[in-house]
Amino acid sequence: MSQMQRRVLGVDPGLTRCGIGIVEGAIGKPLRLVGVGVILTSPDAPLEQRLLQLEGELEEWIALQKPDVIAVERVFSQHNVRTVMGTAQAAGIALLVAARRNIPVVMHTPSEVKAAVTGSGRANKAQVAEMVKRLLNLEVIPKPVDSTDALALAICHIWRGGGNSKIAEALKAEKSRLSKLVGK
Amino acid sequence: MSQMQRRVLGVDPGLTRCGIGIVEGAIGKPLRLVGVGVILTSPDAPLEQRLLQLEGELEEWIALQKPDVIAVERVFSQHNVRTVMGTAQAAGIALLVAARRNIPVVMHTPSEVKAAVTGSGRANKAQVAEMVKRLLNLEVIPKPVDSTDALALAICHIWRGGGNSKIAEALKAEKSRLSKLVGK
Repeated sequence: MSQMQRRVLGVDPGLTRCGIGIVEGAIGKPLRLVGVGVILTSPDAPLEQRLLQLEGELEEWIALQKPDVIAVERVFSQHNVRTVMGTAQAAGIALLVAARRNIPVVMHTPSEVKAAVTGSGRANKAQVAEMVKRLLNLEVIPKPVDSTDALALAICHIWRGGGNSKIAEALKAEKSRLSKLVGK
Repeated sequence: MSQMQRRVLGVDPGLTRCGIGIVEGAIGKPLRLVGVGVILTSPDAPLEQRLLQLEGELEEWIALQKPDVIAVERVFSQHNVRTVMGTAQAAGIALLVAARRNIPVVMHTPSEVKAAVTGSGRANKAQVAEMVKRLLNLEVIPKPVDSTDALALAICHIWRGGGNSKIAEALKAEKSRLSKLVGK
């Protein structure tokens, strides 16, 4: 194992569904799926209870999985305003929980994640999910899509370890490895 | 003291400046200023550290002041997108801290607060600040404006205790009391 080997917990923030994906790996090494899941809170529950539940479940994931780093998707306010507020608050809770435990926390934009995993910042969700499946050597795509996004985020962070240039290298190496595996 | 007497901690959420105002009172009774202040976090600090600091200072206010209720301004995404994200996250932290301590937490919109305190949902900040000063029987307007907004929020909540109709009554009674006091 390289000393750059890291366990990254990716968080795709959301109030109704918050994706969690834990990946272990290092630049240029195969990646390993450690854990994946979704934290669900009820849209019918009071907002403060949803945030409290989210905090509790995030704490549990972190306590059990002991990530070295937490990667949170950077939220933008392009879409539905109501959703974005909840997403921003869910992201805030993830950042808070990380800071409280003194775990380094980083944010990546959706297009950084897409670019890291598929080579294109404009890849669609299905393409990201397919690449996550391949990169983690899984037989099926994890469900729901929030958890795939969280895994992609963790992979993105592992590959960004040494900066952007490393992503290109890692992507190239990984693509060559995969094309051998899938035989095309 | 009426049994409806309540101590309300108002939170005007913000990442750079989070206003705090604590008011004690009941519908139809004079209001009392218990405490007022602002939580400041540095725009230069990492977001997760700012959220952690905000959580810590909110916890301190609550531990010291033991409010019966926490009132948080409901955030809208009308203005600057960047600011709104931070505001939503600050509000989320306030809701979380309240829920964790099992303190009832409510949200009021800016126009509900303005209407409750001044009689007009379109009052400007100076009008709200002036009414807060009068209602709390202060000699000067608390500064900065974030803390005045937090006090207005707490007052709004005290008066909304029994629902919207009570606000109109309270406002009427208070206006009549004040016009006697200020002699006009």
